[in-house]
Amino acid sequence: MRFKVKDVDIATGGTLVAILNKKDALMLDLHTGDRLKISRGNKATVAVLDIAVSDKLVKRGQIGLMEEVLEKIGAKQGSVVNISIDEKPKSIALIKKKLDGFRLSPEETELIVRDIVNNKLTSVEITYFVAAGYVQGIDLDETVALTKAMINTGKILKVDRYPVVDKHCIGGVAGNRTTMVVVPLLVAAGYCMPKTSSRSITSPSGTADTMEVLCNVNLDIEQIRKVVDKVGGCITWGGAVNLAPADDKIITVEHPLSVDAEGQLLASILAKKGSVSATHILIDIPVGKGAKVQNLKHAKHLRKLFLKVGKRLNMKIHVVITDGSQPIGNGIGPALEARDVLWVLQNHPNAPKDLKHKSLVLASEIMAAYPLSWKSRHSYRYTKELLESGKAWETMRNIIIAQGAKILDPKMISVGKFTLDVKSSSDGKVSHIDNIAISRIARVAGAPFDKGAGIYLYHHVGDVVKRGDVLFTIYADNKQKLAYAKDYLNQYGSIIIS
Amino acid sequence: MRFKVKDVDIATGGTLVAILNKKDALMLDLHTGDRLKISRGNKATVAVLDIAVSDKLVKRGQIGLMEEVLEKIGAKQGSVVNISIDEKPKSIALIKKKLDGFRLSPEETELIVRDIVNNKLTSVEITYFVAAGYVQGIDLDETVALTKAMINTGKILKVDRYPVVDKHCIGGVAGNRTTMVVVPLLVAAGYCMPKTSSRSITSPSGTADTMEVLCNVNLDIEQIRKVVDKVGGCITWGGAVNLAPADDKIITVEHPLSVDAEGQLLASILAKKGSVSATHILIDIPVGKGAKVQNLKHAKHLRKLFLKVGKRLNMKIHVVITDGSQPIGNGIGPALEARDVLWVLQNHPNAPKDLKHKSLVLASEIMAAYPLSWKSRHSYRYTKELLESGKAWETMRNIIIAQGAKILDPKMISVGKFTLDVKSSSDGKVSHIDNIAISRIARVAGAPFDKGAGIYLYHHVGDVVKRGDVLFTIYADNKQKLAYAKDYLNQYGSIIIS
Repeated sequence: MRFKVKDVDIATGGTLVAILNKKDALMLDLHTGDRLKISRGNKATVAVLDIAVSDKLVKRGQIGLMEEVLEKIGAKQGSVVNISIDEKPKSIALIKKKLDGFRLSPEETELIVRDIVNNKLTSVEITYFVAAGYVQGIDLDETVALTKAMINTGKILKVDRYPVVDKHCIGGVAGNRTTMVVVPLLVAAGYCMPKTSSRSITSPSGTADTMEVLCNVNLDIEQIRKVVDKVGGCITWGGAVNLAPADDKIITVEHPLSVDAEGQLLASILAKKGSVSATHILIDIPVGKGAKVQNLKHAKHLRKLFLKVGKRLNMKIHVVITDGSQPIGNGIGPALEARDVLWVLQNHPNAPKDLKHKSLVLASEIMAAYPLSWKSRHSYRYTKELLESGKAWETMRNIIIAQGAKILDPKMISVGKFTLDVKSSSDGKVSHIDNIAISRIARVAGAPFDKGAGIYLYHHVGDVVKRGDVLFTIYADNKQKLAYAKDYLNQYGSIIIS
Repeated sequence: MRFKVKDVDIATGGTLVAILNKKDALMLDLHTGDRLKISRGNKATVAVLDIAVSDKLVKRGQIGLMEEVLEKIGAKQGSVVNISIDEKPKSIALIKKKLDGFRLSPEETELIVRDIVNNKLTSVEITYFVAAGYVQGIDLDETVALTKAMINTGKILKVDRYPVVDKHCIGGVAGNRTTMVVVPLLVAAGYCMPKTSSRSITSPSGTADTMEVLCNVNLDIEQIRKVVDKVGGCITWGGAVNLAPADDKIITVEHPLSVDAEGQLLASILAKKGSVSATHILIDIPVGKGAKVQNLKHAKHLRKLFLKVGKRLNMKIHVVITDGSQPIGNGIGPALEARDVLWVLQNHPNAPKDLKHKSLVLASEIMAAYPLSWKSRHSYRYTKELLESGKAWETMRNIIIAQGAKILDPKMISVGKFTLDVKSSSDGKVSHIDNIAISRIARVAGAPFDKGAGIYLYHHVGDVVKRGDVLFTIYADNKQKLAYAKDYLNQYGSIIIS
C-alpha cells in the first residue's frame, strides 16, 4: 500500500508513530497500536499506528510521520512510502502471559524491559504490564530479574572503589534533607558515595531541587565520574543521566492511577543504586501518618523484602525504620531546606537539631554496618566529630565547588519576599504536624518551582506554645501565591495544638 | 501560569489534549495525564496534559492546543492562556478500586462508562479499567450495570414493534454468513429485525463487509428507521451509528493484547442489541478448533452467563451451540460470501448446503422460541418453505433496494482476477479444514480490503478426494498478493487429507 508522507511531530515520549486517516485505517482493517513496516527504496523501519480522527492532520492517502521515522527511511514531506503490516513485538505476548497470572522467566522480563527502553511498546501495552504486576504480584525471582534488566538496559557508572555506598528514603516526610548531610559525612570518613537524587514529584522539593540552590545538579555520567574521582562523592540529579531508563517510562503510566506494585517499587529503587555500582545501601523507611509507609507492620514487611532482594542482587542492604510522623528540619522548600543543611554542616546555632541528629544516625548506621576503620565502630561519636570539627562541611564545600558552586554561605540564600506568619490560636502543646498539609501549603506557595518559596517551622511536636506564638512562616515569591497558600491553610489546617 | 498558544492537531481518538514542553512540565512538576484547567478571560476548559519531548512541536512557554480546545476558550495561535492544575475525574479512583479487587456499584460503573464516552479518560486510564475487569473478573451485577451504562450513553434506535429480534455469532468460523439469510427469513415471517453488524476485525470479512458488496451499509439511525419501517428489517454497519459508543473505545485498548473479559464480552454484545431495542436475541456459539470457543464446556458456561444476564436485562435470550470446526459456506471473503448468500436465497444449484441448512436452523430456532403464529411451531419446515418459495429472496431484495442496491444478480459479483487452484496431493478423506489458516490466507490474498479476494472451497470435512482434485481456489486482485497467499499456504497448510 502506498502513502504520501506528511511531516508531523507528535508527543509520544519515544515510541515511533505513524498516523493514518481514520477512513484509510478502517478500509485497511488497521487498528491503533498495530505495527506498520514503512519502507522507501531499500530503507525500512517499523512504527506504531495511531489514527487521526479528523482530516486536518492527516488526509486520506497520507501517512503522518515523525522526524525520526523520516530520517530512518530517508523520506520527507510528499515522499511516497510503502506500508505493510509487521509482526507485533514478542514482549506483548509475554505481558499477556503475566496478566493471565503466569510467572515470567528472567529472559522474558528482560525482553519486556528492553522493548520498553527501545520504545517498541506503546503506553497502553506498558500499562498492561504495570497492571499485571500490580494485580498478580511480582515475586522475588521476578523482582530480581526486573532490577537486573533495568540496570542492564541503561547506562552504568563504573566506580573502581569498594565499598560504594548509597542511600534511599521511601519518602513522604516534609523537609528531611538528610542526604545532603549524610553524603559529606560518609565521604569525609573515606567512603565513596556517587549519589544521584530525584527532583520532587508531588513534594515541595526533592534532594536534587534543594542541592540545585547551591550548585549545578545536571551532571552527565562523565561529569559525575570526574567529581567522584576528585572528591569521593557527589549529589546530582539522576534524571540528567540515562540510569535505568525503563523506570521513567514505567513511572509515566503508573502515575495516572498511582499504581505501584511492591516488586516494581523495589526494582525501581535498587536499579538506580545498581546503576551507580553501589555495593552497600542504606534504606530509610520513615513511618507515620502522612508518610508513604503508614505503620510499622508495613515497614517491617518492606525491610524483609529489601533484604531478600538485596541478597539475591549481591548488594549489602541495611534498612532503618525512622519516625516519619512530622517534618524533619525547619525549612520546607528548596532554598529553606538548603539553608538548614548549610547551618547543620557549618554548626550554626540555627541548625535544626532533628535534621542534625537524624543525619548523624543514618551516617553512623552505614558506618557501623560496613566499618572502614576502628573509628567506624564508634560510629555516632565519629560522625558527630566529623560534623562538629568542620570536616563534613569541608567535604561538602569541595563537592559543591566540583559541581560548579553557586552559593556556599547560607546568608546568600534568598527566600521568598512575601511572608505570612501563622500563629497559634491557643495555649498548649504541639500534638501533630501534618506532613501532607505542610507539603501542600509549600507547593501552593510556589515550591519547588519558586526556589525561595515554602515554609519555615518554628516548632515541632511536643513543643509548648502560647496563644499568638508564631508556629511557622509561609514564604512566597508573589502576593497571589501567598494568598493561595493562606486559603489552603484555612481550608485544611496543618498543626494541631492540644 | 501563563502560556502562549500554539495551534496543533494530534491524533487522540477524542480526549482533549494540551501539550507542554518537557522542560516546562518538569519545572511545574506536571505529568502526562494530569488535568489542566485552561482559561482565557471568562472561558475555561479542562484538557489532559501530554508532554512534547522535542522542542519542535511545542517550545518552552508555549502550550499546544487542539482545535476543539481553542474553540471552547475562544483562543487562537499566539493567544495567551492561563493554566492551573485541575482535579482528576472521580472515575479514576473507581478504576483503581476495581483494580484493587473491589466490586463496583451500578452508579460507579455508569460514571466510568460516561467518562469514557465523554472523552474524559485517557487510553492509559481506560486500559487500567479493562485490565482490572480482565484480572479481577466482572460479576453478574457488574455485567448488567456495564451493559445498561453502555446502552444509556449512546444513541438508541426506538422500534415500535414487538418482538424485535436480533442475533449474534461469537465468531471465529470462516464464511458463516448466516445473518444475511436469517434476516430475510425472519422478516418474511413477520418478525422485525433491525440488524446492525460489524466489519471484519481480524477475519477476512464481517457481515457488514459482505453486505456492502450488494448495497450501502453506512446508514445513520434515521435511515435505518426508514428502511425498517418500510421493509421490517435491515442489515447495516453498526459502526456508522453511535450505538453503545463506549464499546468502541474499550475495544481500542483491548485490541493490542487481545484482552477480553467475559463480562466485557457479554456487555459489549448485549449493549449493541439493547441499543436497537431488541427484545428476543439468538446467540450462536460455534464450537471447534480454530473457532473462538474451543470446547463444549466453555460454550455451555457462556450459555449460562448469557441466560443469567439476559434475564436481568429483561431480554429473552436463546443460545444455540453449533459446529464451528470448519468453515460454513464455500466462499471466504466479501464478494465470494455475498455470492453464496444470493445463491442460497435464489435457490441456485451452487448454493452451499451447509450455509443453507445452518441458516434455516438458526431462523427456526428463533421462531420456535418466540412463535408468532402456528406456523412458527413447525419452524424448520416453515423457514424451508419461506426460502424455497422465493419469499425470503423477495424480502432480501426489498432490503437491498431500500439500502440502495448495487447488485441483485450473483452473476454481477466480480471476484479476484488472479487465481490459484490448490490441489490435493493424495487420495483420501478431508479430515480437517483449519479456520484460522483459511482466514489468514484469504486476508493475505487481500480480503476484506479487496472485496473480490478470498477463497472458494470445493470440499468440506468428510468429502472423499483424489490426488489432483482441486480443494480450493484462492482469488486475488493482483499477482503479488496471490504470491503472498501461496507463500503463507506453503508455510502453514490449511486442509488435512487422511
